[in-house]
Amino acid sequence: MSHRVNDYSGEMDTDISRVASSRRHSDNLPYVHKVGVPPKPNLLKEITESVKETFFHDDPLRHFKDQSKTKKLRLGIQAVFPILDWGRSYNLSKFKGDLISGLTIASLCIPQDIGYAKLANLDPQYGLYSSFVPPLVYAFMGSSRDIAIGPVAVVSLLLGSMLQAEFDPVKQKLEYQRLAFTATFFAGITQFILGFFRLGFLIDFLSHAAIVGFMAGAAITISLQQLKGLLGIKKFTKETGIVSVMRSVFAAAHHGWNWQTIVIGVSFLAFLLVAKFIGKKNKKYFWVPAIAPMISIILSTLFVFIFHAEKHGVQIVRHIDRGINPPSLKQIYFSGENLTKGFKIGAISGLIALTEAAAIGRTFAALKDYQLDGNKEMVALGTMNIVGSMTSCYVATGSFSRSAVNYMAGCHTAVSNIIMSCVVLLTLELITPLFKYTPNAILASIIISAVIGLIDIDAMKLLYKIDKFDFVACMGAFLGVIFESVEIGLLIAVAISFAKILLQVTRPRIAVLGKVPRTTVYRNIQQYPEATRVPGILIVRVDSAIYFSNSNYMRDRILRWLTDEDEMLKETNQQKIQYLIVEMSPVTDIDTSGIHSLEDLFKSLQKRDVQLVLANPGPLVNDKLHASGFPDMIGEDKIFLTVADAVMTFAPKMEP
Amino acid sequence: MSHRVNDYSGEMDTDISRVASSRRHSDNLPYVHKVGVPPKPNLLKEITESVKETFFHDDPLRHFKDQSKTKKLRLGIQAVFPILDWGRSYNLSKFKGDLISGLTIASLCIPQDIGYAKLANLDPQYGLYSSFVPPLVYAFMGSSRDIAIGPVAVVSLLLGSMLQAEFDPVKQKLEYQRLAFTATFFAGITQFILGFFRLGFLIDFLSHAAIVGFMAGAAITISLQQLKGLLGIKKFTKETGIVSVMRSVFAAAHHGWNWQTIVIGVSFLAFLLVAKFIGKKNKKYFWVPAIAPMISIILSTLFVFIFHAEKHGVQIVRHIDRGINPPSLKQIYFSGENLTKGFKIGAISGLIALTEAAAIGRTFAALKDYQLDGNKEMVALGTMNIVGSMTSCYVATGSFSRSAVNYMAGCHTAVSNIIMSCVVLLTLELITPLFKYTPNAILASIIISAVIGLIDIDAMKLLYKIDKFDFVACMGAFLGVIFESVEIGLLIAVAISFAKILLQVTRPRIAVLGKVPRTTVYRNIQQYPEATRVPGILIVRVDSAIYFSNSNYMRDRILRWLTDEDEMLKETNQQKIQYLIVEMSPVTDIDTSGIHSLEDLFKSLQKRDVQLVLANPGPLVNDKLHASGFPDMIGEDKIFLTVADAVMTFAPKMEP
Repeated sequence: MSHRVNDYSGEMDTDISRVASSRRHSDNLPYVHKVGVPPKPNLLKEITESVKETFFHDDPLRHFKDQSKTKKLRLGIQAVFPILDWGRSYNLSKFKGDLISGLTIASLCIPQDIGYAKLANLDPQYGLYSSFVPPLVYAFMGSSRDIAIGPVAVVSLLLGSMLQAEFDPVKQKLEYQRLAFTATFFAGITQFILGFFRLGFLIDFLSHAAIVGFMAGAAITISLQQLKGLLGIKKFTKETGIVSVMRSVFAAAHHGWNWQTIVIGVSFLAFLLVAKFIGKKNKKYFWVPAIAPMISIILSTLFVFIFHAEKHGVQIVRHIDRGINPPSLKQIYFSGENLTKGFKIGAISGLIALTEAAAIGRTFAALKDYQLDGNKEMVALGTMNIVGSMTSCYVATGSFSRSAVNYMAGCHTAVSNIIMSCVVLLTLELITPLFKYTPNAILASIIISAVIGLIDIDAMKLLYKIDKFDFVACMGAFLGVIFESVEIGLLIAVAISFAKILLQVTRPRIAVLGKVPRTTVYRNIQQYPEATRVPGILIVRVDSAIYFSNSNYMRDRILRWLTDEDEMLKETNQQKIQYLIVEMSPVTDIDTSGIHSLEDLFKSLQKRDVQLVLANPGPLVNDKLHASGFPDMIGEDKIFLTVADAVMTFAPKMEP
Repeated sequence: MSHRVNDYSGEMDTDISRVASSRRHSDNLPYVHKVGVPPKPNLLKEITESVKETFFHDDPLRHFKDQSKTKKLRLGIQAVFPILDWGRSYNLSKFKGDLISGLTIASLCIPQDIGYAKLANLDPQYGLYSSFVPPLVYAFMGSSRDIAIGPVAVVSLLLGSMLQAEFDPVKQKLEYQRLAFTATFFAGITQFILGFFRLGFLIDFLSHAAIVGFMAGAAITISLQQLKGLLGIKKFTKETGIVSVMRSVFAAAHHGWNWQTIVIGVSFLAFLLVAKFIGKKNKKYFWVPAIAPMISIILSTLFVFIFHAEKHGVQIVRHIDRGINPPSLKQIYFSGENLTKGFKIGAISGLIALTEAAAIGRTFAALKDYQLDGNKEMVALGTMNIVGSMTSCYVATGSFSRSAVNYMAGCHTAVSNIIMSCVVLLTLELITPLFKYTPNAILASIIISAVIGLIDIDAMKLLYKIDKFDFVACMGAFLGVIFESVEIGLLIAVAISFAKILLQVTRPRIAVLGKVPRTTVYRNIQQYPEATRVPGILIVRVDSAIYFSNSNYMRDRILRWLTDEDEMLKETNQQKIQYLIVEMSPVTDIDTSGIHSLEDLFKSLQKRDVQLVLANPGPLVNDKLHASGFPDMIGEDKIFLTVADAVMTFAPKMEP
């Protein structure tokens, strides 16, 4: 039992001594261990390690250790361009997989791109532009092997709705476009900076529950917006709230709906949904939903072309610019108030894009078991959007649906993104004129069938089952998006996420403990109704670090318990409380406010003739208590290793 | 051992079974307990209790239970006006104490009030007004017995500096005053609302450390401002930063300093400081520093009057309006942009005032051991400022220095505030003209000697000794106030306080555990270097609730450890890790993001052929894990009550 002497840990595993003491109890030999004072740790080292754990917990520079300068340089370049690393072991069999998956996601992305550009109130070619440059940049700098880069529905909607609040997309087309590029530029800058300064953990503050609600809300909002195309309505509200959209839809019911459009739209929507269902039923047919949109486009375009349906009120795409991305650096606002607007819009959509990309990256990295450096990924995504903003792209990120197809089609590396990019290039150069007769209704159907997967009812049910608070956060974000706007929904999601954190740190659990019969163990009496209180002693356990945010609550709560207890004992003529034992095992840390509260608690107890006793303070806590002189204040002999030791010491001394 | 069956608690005190199992180990009888599935708790009840703990943990309505309607009404009125409660047992002996202390704090508050009004850039009478109405209101509604109400230095400075940014206090005097009343009105509204909706805990988010720094910085800033009066400088900067103030002071050195003023100011400052020192040395002479300011005023006023020093450049008060508070309801801005400005300024200064009052209330309540309902106090303070704003008062709150004098002079109830208020009334009605010849230098000396006590160097030293992070927060607030402005300092204080909370919830400690020799106990190997790892098993402990804010970190950190460990084992040709045991004892709660991370962790481990094992999940955690189906995923037989049990089960099964 040589460990008893330096057994100052307290860190919740004081089992040796507990075992020892409980054995001794059974022999009726009272032996009480003391909590030792630990040696002072090296403070500089402590701070360095704390900084390291916060920003560099994944030790990103570990490969650079003990290397020559040339090697370091090579490793450095490889770190920025991972393609130089994995490219060396690239081979034909990998290329086969990448080629097939690249072609598959290309056939999926082209129709989606055109539709998503409309969501962002931009001309269709901008969607295609954004599927050409950003995937190329990502392929060189990114380290996820499965992510498929390009425009996505939620970010397009968010961007479109925020830009629309500043400029009219039709009447102020040029300003609108310029602000879009400005926002894209700053989205990239935001992502780059977060990654570069290793602040990537900030996106963790949007909780999973909030994202589920936000995504589902966005999916419904996007689908509702598609009613315009699907029903062939010409006059449509600009707001995204469900109330004004439905009002718009029904106002147009009498003369604004176009039955030819509805027939085309709804029949292809049915086709797409069936394809989706087949792909879901049997994973082998994952390619069915992947190529269904392209087939729909071809068939419907042919149909319109042959029957000239556009003359019967079926709205068509009419025109897509031919040729690759024109430069757009000069269109970015680098001064004036549009800079500020662009920055605000860019930062928000950049963060949302990041959240989506990070979730995808993590999911597939876990499936194939490779490590992703989240911060490095952010730098790659940021660079890609900065370059994109200069080549007429709007905010691109990883797409959930296309990444899943990419994975299932057997991609091996980011080369599949390069393949997709090449196909988009050919499309832009050669076949954009063919999209002229594509009906808008088909694009609407494609978008609806794409975003419908974002509504994850199972996840919502699970949230309800597992954690009510998470469910509230989810519903808050969901209802905020569909009834108000995407921004409001986002705000609610962030606010609820923060409220949860604040609640966690302000109101820790504090339990009253009782002695479990025939043992020396003290447990929560609410959980163990058979546990009995020791007469004259109140034992409480604090289940959290004691910081300024909860220290007052802790003190007040404990005093309140003591008052209630004393009142109860008075009524039943029982012995007054003489000792208050605070079980500190779960208290991982304490700050000066916490120590102050303990001192206040001690003073209040003194007035009531109650002794304050601490059991099992952890090493960090014990350290700080000693530095503050608190043990001298209450008496070193009032600090015990276990509750059992404390009770054993004081129970016999009790006044009758 | 009947408790073994429902021993699903895990809540860090699984001692019975540990004792039991370790005993069995010594008998070489492998007996492994399982973590049981707890019965579902009543969810509605759970939510109700959680709301109750958050907002009503002090059970404010407990006296109303089981009472008749008339009694309830009477108790309700008493709850709003505690004077009706304690007033009934008021007697002559209590009045004696209150009279003496009331007269003492009156003699202290009158000179301070005049000075503090100048800090807020208001005419001297407004300080006196604020010591007349608010204390009266508080006496009826407040429940602290020791607090002395009136204007205080820090709030005056803060208010003055924020108001000055909107209107010039000399050229736009009327607008400035109107905005001051508007701000006071909204300070009251803010305080009232926080209290009424029981959101008082929000002020706990300003940490003790940040307040120490903020107060010290404010004291230095205030003292520097007094150099104007003390040195008789006429042209003085409007900024509060130390750099511009010192530049102002030295720019005036050649012709702007007035030696007569300096002689008067410095000699009385010395007198006041000596008085303060005497009071500090011997608590019996607490009244010496309490009446010293009044004596200084009388002596210096006489001196100026007799020698006509004002003709030698000594600046004097010149004029104080005679008579009690004029009504000011009509001066409050209830519309326009001044309403917004007033609201912003009022909310900030109201919160700071609240922080100060709450700290005072708590301190003295602890000294005399009575309970204060913080939220009810806020309602009282809020009402007092609302009424104050309609009677020409500016923001009043509890003063540290005067409350201490009140306490030491032997006050018993808030009647001492009424006495003070009456003395101020008489002053306003009768003797304000006598202040005409009071030199400004004396007011400066009084303010300096009053605020100097706010610089708590011992507390700063203690912060440095106990908690480096708290010290950084303190210094940040301190330097922010003295180099920039009060608002910036406040902002820094709040930001650092929040950063600490965020750090706490994003980066919990995760420790690798090893087996302490000759025991079945597993502890942090950094703390116990003699603890040995079990070959093929990695044991980690997570020291926090697992929430969305830290779940990704937790998963990544654990995987990183596994990778490092495996690399190390590979180099030394040792057995590969086959089991990862996560000790969950300190995990008090988990949310859906946390469960997702555990699932991701499980999937990653599967790819590496490592088994995931959980030890000792707490009741809440176990609940949620079962609701999510996680135990089915990893296998019910992978969840153990203790780490020792898990190791005992798997160690023999290990492949060589």
